[in-house]
Amino acid sequence: MKPSIAAHLQAFQQENRNRGRLLITCPDRPGIVAAVSQFLFTYEANIIESSQYSTNPTGGTFFMRIEFECPDLPGKAAYMQEAFRTIGADFEMNWRLLPLYEVKRTAVFVSKELHCLLELLWEWQNGDLLTDISLVISNHEDAREAVEQLGIPFYHIPARRENRAEAEATQLELLREYEIDLIVLARYMQILTPQFVSAHPHRIINIHHSFLPAFIGARPYERAFERGVKLIGATSHYVTDDLDEGPIIEQGIERVQHHHNAEDLKKIGRSIERSVLARAVKWHLEDRVIVHGNKTIVF
Amino acid sequence: MKPSIAAHLQAFQQENRNRGRLLITCPDRPGIVAAVSQFLFTYEANIIESSQYSTNPTGGTFFMRIEFECPDLPGKAAYMQEAFRTIGADFEMNWRLLPLYEVKRTAVFVSKELHCLLELLWEWQNGDLLTDISLVISNHEDAREAVEQLGIPFYHIPARRENRAEAEATQLELLREYEIDLIVLARYMQILTPQFVSAHPHRIINIHHSFLPAFIGARPYERAFERGVKLIGATSHYVTDDLDEGPIIEQGIERVQHHHNAEDLKKIGRSIERSVLARAVKWHLEDRVIVHGNKTIVF
Amino acid sequence: MKPSIAAHLQAFQQENRNRGRLLITCPDRPGIVAAVSQFLFTYEANIIESSQYSTNPTGGTFFMRIEFECPDLPGKAAYMQEAFRTIGADFEMNWRLLPLYEVKRTAVFVSKELHCLLELLWEWQNGDLLTDISLVISNHEDAREAVEQLGIPFYHIPARRENRAEAEATQLELLREYEIDLIVLARYMQILTPQFVSAHPHRIINIHHSFLPAFIGARPYERAFERGVKLIGATSHYVTDDLDEGPIIEQGIERVQHHHNAEDLKKIGRSIERSVLARAVKWHLEDRVIVHGNKTIVF
Amino acid sequence: MKPSIAAHLQAFQQENRNRGRLLITCPDRPGIVAAVSQFLFTYEANIIESSQYSTNPTGGTFFMRIEFECPDLPGKAAYMQEAFRTIGADFEMNWRLLPLYEVKRTAVFVSKELHCLLELLWEWQNGDLLTDISLVISNHEDAREAVEQLGIPFYHIPARRENRAEAEATQLELLREYEIDLIVLARYMQILTPQFVSAHPHRIINIHHSFLPAFIGARPYERAFERGVKLIGATSHYVTDDLDEGPIIEQGIERVQHHHNAEDLKKIGRSIERSVLARAVKWHLEDRVIVHGNKTIVF
Repeated sequence: MKPSIAAHLQAFQQENRNRGRLLITCPDRPGIVAAVSQFLFTYEANIIESSQYSTNPTGGTFFMRIEFECPDLPGKAAYMQEAFRTIGADFEMNWRLLPLYEVKRTAVFVSKELHCLLELLWEWQNGDLLTDISLVISNHEDAREAVEQLGIPFYHIPARRENRAEAEATQLELLREYEIDLIVLARYMQILTPQFVSAHPHRIINIHHSFLPAFIGARPYERAFERGVKLIGATSHYVTDDLDEGPIIEQGIERVQHHHNAEDLKKIGRSIERSVLARAVKWHLEDRVIVHGNKTIVF
Repeated sequence: MKPSIAAHLQAFQQENRNRGRLLITCPDRPGIVAAVSQFLFTYEANIIESSQYSTNPTGGTFFMRIEFECPDLPGKAAYMQEAFRTIGADFEMNWRLLPLYEVKRTAVFVSKELHCLLELLWEWQNGDLLTDISLVISNHEDAREAVEQLGIPFYHIPARRENRAEAEATQLELLREYEIDLIVLARYMQILTPQFVSAHPHRIINIHHSFLPAFIGARPYERAFERGVKLIGATSHYVTDDLDEGPIIEQGIERVQHHHNAEDLKKIGRSIERSVLARAVKWHLEDRVIVHGNKTIVF
Repeated sequence: MKPSIAAHLQAFQQENRNRGRLLITCPDRPGIVAAVSQFLFTYEANIIESSQYSTNPTGGTFFMRIEFECPDLPGKAAYMQEAFRTIGADFEMNWRLLPLYEVKRTAVFVSKELHCLLELLWEWQNGDLLTDISLVISNHEDAREAVEQLGIPFYHIPARRENRAEAEATQLELLREYEIDLIVLARYMQILTPQFVSAHPHRIINIHHSFLPAFIGARPYERAFERGVKLIGATSHYVTDDLDEGPIIEQGIERVQHHHNAEDLKKIGRSIERSVLARAVKWHLEDRVIVHGNKTIVF
Repeated sequence: MKPSIAAHLQAFQQENRNRGRLLITCPDRPGIVAAVSQFLFTYEANIIESSQYSTNPTGGTFFMRIEFECPDLPGKAAYMQEAFRTIGADFEMNWRLLPLYEVKRTAVFVSKELHCLLELLWEWQNGDLLTDISLVISNHEDAREAVEQLGIPFYHIPARRENRAEAEATQLELLREYEIDLIVLARYMQILTPQFVSAHPHRIINIHHSFLPAFIGARPYERAFERGVKLIGATSHYVTDDLDEGPIIEQGIERVQHHHNAEDLKKIGRSIERSVLARAVKWHLEDRVIVHGNKTIVF
């Protein structure tokens, strides 16, 4: 990693060394907020931002994201995680308590179209994407220069239908080696196997170049052109075994006109894709996205 | 029609008594614009607005819409229509020369949800929709009061699957009697028969309550909710025999969030539907929409 | 009020008889959320929606809006309001505890342009604006028919610069008589005196027909046209003594083009104005807007 | 220039060697389109795209942009330019006939914030900005690496209030040497002298970081934050002697919320600025922008 980017990350970690996040999913019932906020107060934590949502106040599912500032968090985090277990068990919670200094490690997969990758790298250089982009994997060489000049390791792993198993084995080995938390498919035009996907639940973010569920599958811009739509879009979603059917994180659209041909739609689409993917990745890194069934709560 | 609205229409006709439009579709080749503009100049017509598009300059289809001001158009229109035949034949044109004082006559079909109808009526009262809304037909009584208080005849024709043929016969009789040019389905929740549709090619405008081609068919908001999309939309299109597959005139979208339930989506959707339909109808009335295959050129 | 609208309101009050809201502004410090949520838990209230914001976690101002469901709220509300005083005093809170069955009473002021009024009435008829529109006051007669046919009292009070004091005296008398909580200026083209304004702090909502702070003052569309802007807007804000300078609640914009003249901008602007005002009023009625200095927090 | 970008440009010039544009401003009167289209037909030119606008059909100003395909344009262009003089004189036209193979030469001025420059370079690499970016001038060193790695000459010319005359002399010398057609101020934070500006009428494009005419002058994001607006914007305009008062080419906006501080607004603003400036530059390069008084016609 380039020194200037490393400096961004370290400054962020230093500034936020006492900052943490608490993410909760549990059956809704009275008393959850009281218990959680009392817990935080006990540890002298001040709630900075708090969001919650319930699918149904009676018998539904409750979701909460709290960002807090807690004096000496590095010294207390382990105790707090231990102590929260009781509350978690009482309310049947699925929960995570995450200090911000534990920055997520990200791998980006890309093919020949670089606009989404370059957008992510650009936001990252600016200090707007707080993660350690640990490596970039591609089935082509096109991205090497842009990646390596930022000091990020680049791996060229040719991946075709025939050698998919072998390529994925190499990829998985790298993901383990670099201790990757998040995989971003930045227009990586290869299908992943169910084995690969199920090994990273809600940790693979894809950008699909259409306004899902319209134009599922291949050649969406060509099909949008043929259908004569007046708006085109892009969709960022978590990858599941069902192609283009995973939980949607973010979508965006732009207006198009009769004089735009399929090639124009692709160009317009590129700018939608890169901003939609960048927002989705940012929200994931800020722990704003909770998956519930096949939907997302975005706090 | 209420006197104030009739006054709007008459003022429009008077102000635009010398205004005409020329719409052309033909094989593209050099010389079209020269021939057409020379023709108009011969009749002392000044071109006010002109739009053109070609699917492909070599061997494609050429589309043009010209709005012109021509001294004494009422006295010349018939001659001009006769004289243009030669040019039309030379260039194998599909063409129409339309004086603006010949205002289109519109029928609106509606069921129980009135938001789209009311938007059209409201624009119409304001003088923003220049047409003679000659009658409203509904399979329910809900719209009667709002329609009749504007002096528009209202016909309640119960229409169910069982009596469709009979209901359509009555409707067709009314459309003939009122010499209707345009039919607007303002959330008219009944299927029309192929006979009815083919009798009005590119003259029936529908509003579909989804961002087509996503959620074709019934219950689009419920399905959008289940899929967890982050944007919902509406689509206005010409009706063809293929359900929700006709040429799209206009689309619109709004952002939704995880806390919106299917009922919320419907409410948000209502405001998209009414503005999308109103724009589509307005553009049709201004002769801005040319159908080409299953697409529209919107000038 | 028309029986169908009264039925909407009563259904809302009945469905939400146990629903309440708590609005808080106070100096930020740890323990606020814990104290408040513990309080609500004591009364068996379940938190349905909760939003908070702090201008600065250390030494800033803290804002919170909680919506809760509390069994037998009608029986408990007075006790809860009494009991919350201690917490309010401890944390130096500015707070309100509001049962939803106490529906706000609204007066709409309008002049000759009716689009904003009609939008509000339309949302209201649909059950999307939960308030008692108790009266409409106008310096013209234009709105009478639309208002009275919904069973709302309409008062024509001519207001000109010369008789402003007298007109305002009559208006204030009516506002007292009808026990009005909110005044909406739906394109009411008269200036209000400082006395009138200061009698209703943060309870008068205006719609300004420009994207403030651009084009403060008169004739904004003409000036937007002269400046050649490519987007026009509208702004809804609370009225203060400084013309067009009050806290902004909501803004909206639309794209315009070189061929639009000032009259076109007005038409496009009308549709922005009505949706922006409707959103601002809706958020106010849902107690989502907290004023802080000259800004708003919109939860 | 990098070989891959040079290849883009050459391919464009080769593909469009027979493509030209005709731009016209003149008093409106009948016969203009007939004369112009007859002229083009004489030279066997096929009209590909045509746009026109009149401020007022009777006595107003008429604007037209035609893109045409003309066999052997390189051989005919000089003749055509000569021959068009008669028509130009007859109709008192201000006109330009521009072959597309004569690519415009652009200079970009930048300071320390690079997002706008990088966006332009990125679009340019992609072949979406068809110009020869001949040099970049900056009063800082920050942009050197990004510029030089694309093979573009970079000139560091320190510019402060004290040495403005001297710095501008150096800049003007470079602009002459490189035969520059267009100057883009991509967040160049220095004021230009009236001499510099008047030497390049409608050929300097600036990006202002606010939705003009709101927040003219310095620190627009801070002032937007203080005013509590709900939307922020950016404006691209031609530079004239009046600061931030030149003809607007394009504007864009994004929604902001109460929790965004001035720093957040800057970040959000950066993404608006870069897309607004890129669109304005693209339209200028495609000869789509005609200046009329202090406004632009954008075809």
